[in-house]
Amino acid sequence: MNSTKRLFLKASALGAASTLIPSAAFPNIIARPASPKKLKLTFKPYTLELKHVFTVAVSTRTTTPVVLTQIEYDGVVGYGEASMPPYLGETQESVMAFLSRVDLSKYENPFELERILGDVDAITSDNTAAKASVDIALHDLVGKIMGQPLYNIFGYEKDKTPMTSFTIGIDKPDVVRQKVKEAEEYKVLKVKLGRDNDKEMIETIRSVTNKPLTADANQGWKDKFQALDMIHWLKDKNVLFVEQPMHKDMVDDNAWITEHSPIPIITDEACKRFGQVAKMKGVYHGINIKLMKCTGLREANKMIALARGLGMKVMIGCMTETSCGITAAAHLTPAVDWADMDGALLIKNDAFKGMTVVNGKIVLPEKPGIGIVPV
Amino acid sequence: MNSTKRLFLKASALGAASTLIPSAAFPNIIARPASPKKLKLTFKPYTLELKHVFTVAVSTRTTTPVVLTQIEYDGVVGYGEASMPPYLGETQESVMAFLSRVDLSKYENPFELERILGDVDAITSDNTAAKASVDIALHDLVGKIMGQPLYNIFGYEKDKTPMTSFTIGIDKPDVVRQKVKEAEEYKVLKVKLGRDNDKEMIETIRSVTNKPLTADANQGWKDKFQALDMIHWLKDKNVLFVEQPMHKDMVDDNAWITEHSPIPIITDEACKRFGQVAKMKGVYHGINIKLMKCTGLREANKMIALARGLGMKVMIGCMTETSCGITAAAHLTPAVDWADMDGALLIKNDAFKGMTVVNGKIVLPEKPGIGIVPV
Repeated sequence: MNSTKRLFLKASALGAASTLIPSAAFPNIIARPASPKKLKLTFKPYTLELKHVFTVAVSTRTTTPVVLTQIEYDGVVGYGEASMPPYLGETQESVMAFLSRVDLSKYENPFELERILGDVDAITSDNTAAKASVDIALHDLVGKIMGQPLYNIFGYEKDKTPMTSFTIGIDKPDVVRQKVKEAEEYKVLKVKLGRDNDKEMIETIRSVTNKPLTADANQGWKDKFQALDMIHWLKDKNVLFVEQPMHKDMVDDNAWITEHSPIPIITDEACKRFGQVAKMKGVYHGINIKLMKCTGLREANKMIALARGLGMKVMIGCMTETSCGITAAAHLTPAVDWADMDGALLIKNDAFKGMTVVNGKIVLPEKPGIGIVPV
Repeated sequence: MNSTKRLFLKASALGAASTLIPSAAFPNIIARPASPKKLKLTFKPYTLELKHVFTVAVSTRTTTPVVLTQIEYDGVVGYGEASMPPYLGETQESVMAFLSRVDLSKYENPFELERILGDVDAITSDNTAAKASVDIALHDLVGKIMGQPLYNIFGYEKDKTPMTSFTIGIDKPDVVRQKVKEAEEYKVLKVKLGRDNDKEMIETIRSVTNKPLTADANQGWKDKFQALDMIHWLKDKNVLFVEQPMHKDMVDDNAWITEHSPIPIITDEACKRFGQVAKMKGVYHGINIKLMKCTGLREANKMIALARGLGMKVMIGCMTETSCGITAAAHLTPAVDWADMDGALLIKNDAFKGMTVVNGKIVLPEKPGIGIVPV
């Protein structure tokens, strides 16, 4: 029982409220039934419509399928989300099939995240986005029960959020210049490279802005010497770091690039989960943590601790997501070096209001849990 | 605002309570002053009286000096503790001198643990027990504000606490046999070794009980071959693991023992803090985390994640402490392999009621924060 509730009961004991308030109207406070409360998971598919056609090294698309989840307990609802960009192997069908196998009714204490999420993780070896949708909703739920935003529960400093980068997708020069102008508010731009027009992309952006850039090669470079030459060239163009220069299975080549690179080399594709982080040491300078890869906030926080203990850099990234998944991840950003939290900014039909960007910097909502509101 | 408070305000809006309850009696709810709330740290020395003279490989004593702390915020009080066994280099004077330099009045949000504890840590390079006394009190405070016990806030499962070992100090055979009989409730006994009568100690205990043992050499063994012979002998005597066989600076010798040992080798003295954990990989199978070494719960949780990511075993240990420090650490035990949480059981004048031991297993209190009550 928290202090507010104690004070209320003291008020009731004074005779002020207990006879005037019908118990049905305030089931949380008065005459609570003795039957155990249950966790209830529900979910529905949702399709995100992108503002721009999205092109990375390997694909192009105009929508992203997601599944929105809710976990209800004792009248409180936590929101979650699974986002499934097609190249990751999950679909709305596979996520909903997975979530149908998640039985939360057997847990009486929603705070047992380690146990519940461990059980959920054990259902299959994959389905990381589906698992994240449970993790996110549970965190939102317990945050609301405790009456605190996640950044407080995690012990992070709200004002220490970093700038977020904003992604400029691969496109024709005129469109790229237009996108850069539309991204005026963002202080760091992220560029998708890994194709044969990499220098043209950078030169096009540099023709309209001097903002610092980050580059994501998405495994697109095929030769380590050419990659390192490109990285030196990118450094001269004020690129802060490079993500995933070569294919994740080319461990020695990526390690060689990391050893020789004048700027940090960060892995995305090679490091999805906690159990892979230690192997990244010596191969990359840092890791890009995404909730949809790593099964959610609980594992993400452990990955941050592990990477820091190994002396590695940490960034938080995202998929195209609603403000549910994005804002959940944003609560971790006070603990990392760089954030790429533009996933909800790239869609036309966000389902929530949450994190905002002010002068390029992430601003977290102050409401309990994730702090999002359905729109 | 949490849901309970919202409901209360709805009740007030119904006209039931607001005119009947004087605002002075309920300052937390009605007519809260606009001035910012402050964190206030207070502390006092306290001397723990041991039930038995305590002998380890390097010293003997009958008392342990501690400092008890309190952090108050908005009428809520969090309890903390620093324990200073003499061989660790801190005293009541050094702890109080350190705490006098901690200015918490500048923080408006007690939940910013990463920032506040980071600032506290930066005051000196040492004083880990003093730092832990701030960390523990802050965790108790925010737990009480959120109305949840720490195990819920950490996401651990209350029922997953392990057995705690109970330490049988070095002594004459008759006294050892008596101590073992008094320790009837405990299912695992911990034995301090590292002197020339190690086998005698074990044989004496084995003359009265077959319970599993753990052994702590406290850096006492001088030769790696003799140490390994002893470890094989100890395994045959049903010793589960061995702590710190040789001096912490004898890295190669300890690593050689770990490589050849038939049971886990755990480090205590060589690994105090988060920044040392990665270096323990390959030298030991696991680490013994103690709040007084590592500056508290926040760093301890990170050390658990880091050690797990490195594939290492984790135990939680303690100093002689009141039930404040012990119970705080006990909230982490659902996440570890072994616990040695007997520090408050060895003293005559505990200042708190907290964690209990039932059939040898740690039982956590369910009240918010650490869940302790002053006695």
